[in-house]
Amino acid sequence: MINKLINKIQKTNAPIVVGLDPMLNYIPEHIQKKAFLEYGETLEGAAEAIWQFNKAIVDATYDLIPAVKPQIAMYEQFGVEGLKAFQKTVDYCQEKDLVVIGDIKRGDIGSTSEAYAVGHLGRVQVGSKTYEGFHEDFATVNPYLGSDGVKPFIKVCKEEKKGLFILVKTSNPSSGEFQDQLVNGRPLYELVGEQVAKWGEEHMGDSYSYIGAVVGATYPEMGKVLRKLMPKSYILVPGYGAQGGKGADLVHFFNEDGLGAIVNSSRGIIAAYKQEAYAQFGSENFQDASRQAVKDMITDISQALNNR
Amino acid sequence: MINKLINKIQKTNAPIVVGLDPMLNYIPEHIQKKAFLEYGETLEGAAEAIWQFNKAIVDATYDLIPAVKPQIAMYEQFGVEGLKAFQKTVDYCQEKDLVVIGDIKRGDIGSTSEAYAVGHLGRVQVGSKTYEGFHEDFATVNPYLGSDGVKPFIKVCKEEKKGLFILVKTSNPSSGEFQDQLVNGRPLYELVGEQVAKWGEEHMGDSYSYIGAVVGATYPEMGKVLRKLMPKSYILVPGYGAQGGKGADLVHFFNEDGLGAIVNSSRGIIAAYKQEAYAQFGSENFQDASRQAVKDMITDISQALNNR
Repeated sequence: MINKLINKIQKTNAPIVVGLDPMLNYIPEHIQKKAFLEYGETLEGAAEAIWQFNKAIVDATYDLIPAVKPQIAMYEQFGVEGLKAFQKTVDYCQEKDLVVIGDIKRGDIGSTSEAYAVGHLGRVQVGSKTYEGFHEDFATVNPYLGSDGVKPFIKVCKEEKKGLFILVKTSNPSSGEFQDQLVNGRPLYELVGEQVAKWGEEHMGDSYSYIGAVVGATYPEMGKVLRKLMPKSYILVPGYGAQGGKGADLVHFFNEDGLGAIVNSSRGIIAAYKQEAYAQFGSENFQDASRQAVKDMITDISQALNNR
Repeated sequence: MINKLINKIQKTNAPIVVGLDPMLNYIPEHIQKKAFLEYGETLEGAAEAIWQFNKAIVDATYDLIPAVKPQIAMYEQFGVEGLKAFQKTVDYCQEKDLVVIGDIKRGDIGSTSEAYAVGHLGRVQVGSKTYEGFHEDFATVNPYLGSDGVKPFIKVCKEEKKGLFILVKTSNPSSGEFQDQLVNGRPLYELVGEQVAKWGEEHMGDSYSYIGAVVGATYPEMGKVLRKLMPKSYILVPGYGAQGGKGADLVHFFNEDGLGAIVNSSRGIIAAYKQEAYAQFGSENFQDASRQAVKDMITDISQALNNR
């Protein structure tokens, strides 16, 4: 799957991923109204609004981008109905040949991580049959529990040709509280990064590993160090746009070959119509605003990479 | 909710929680067969088998115990159908007046943690209405992202009178890889424990805080230190039984008042009928084996506490 992801990044010339994190207040009135008319102001209604919103954005952008990253929390908040919309979204994006990165940040003790890995990336056994649960192509994983919480995910990735992005340095303001603590003079996130690099070397696609890392765009200096520490790991970079990261901050996340990083924007793309820069589209044409925002993001990052 | 939990622990004289983590291979043949006959060897069939298994164990033990801890991964592996069984299990346990600890180990950046908190402990807004998604009473949370990943959970707990158990030192063999790293001469888990204690003091029930911690039974010496570091935090202790923890290892997780800890056993209770000690019950009477295993666990812990 890492080979497919890189192939698609090269074809689209767009090292970006659209975060499908649909808060209800991002979804234009007319979509919400239609969904509520059909299903009432219910969890089903919310799930329908989310699904229609996602579908429109995917339809308007899928030819420009290699991948999407649905954040499962935004679906899970609506319970089982929300998770049905998550599954529908994953299915639809895969039909459109997009690589789907499930932003699930799971991680537990071994046998439990195995269940998550099976449910999100693998196949679960039921009697004599097997089934795919949510079947994303990549998943994000939390490393706090150490190797035996991560290895079951790696095992399933190997079998199913899927991939991981392991949290190393997250984009949020307080990520440093534990991640930046110095261990023998070096921050904890470097230790985690070294471990990711080690797993990565043992699990290679053609030119990059299918065991990648998450490093926030909001910490460009740390991105520079981590890029060198994990030369064969793809870095998923959240925090661009709404969280404050800019194209110029991102160059050090990439290798000299122009590869090695994929930058996520969620709100900045899916709720673009709410920004002044895209206000002319109006909420009726929110999906066109999203398409334009994708183009602008690609240009911003390309220019930054060309100017380095 | 922490007051209710303590109240129920005192009434049952059982500082224990039954982990409802139903792997299919724990579920007796006759239950699986019946479910597959009705729904086929499908995800629905697996979910039905899980639900019938859980229901039987809850019916056989609910009068002896204060709480249950369903591990959501074991349901999530069966996709949406599995999560329906999770929800049914939460509902049923609450009908039986059990406190439900959702072992979800979620944690993300602020706005995303908020969505998880809303979905598992709070209410989500849909138009003019609000709904509860999975509505557990407590949830486990991963602290790797720092304060702004945890605070949205605390906020919802405060509003809804729910509670948290934050991962401090997990029970698995490789938990030390990152959690034990020394920061200024002290292991990282102590730093996390101090932070939990601070949050705890700011969010008190009557005698204990509703912000608790997870510390594995498999690390009793660390439990001793952490007990002192977080005097007002309830400690959820996994790792008893199948993972190797014994009653005698657990005494230091408790305060002098006999409170302050609640010990989880999953496999040891729900799959008791597979152990030699309970083989006489046979798989047909698996729920009676579970009841006996609960009684034995209560005795083991009581004796250990009396002998200290």
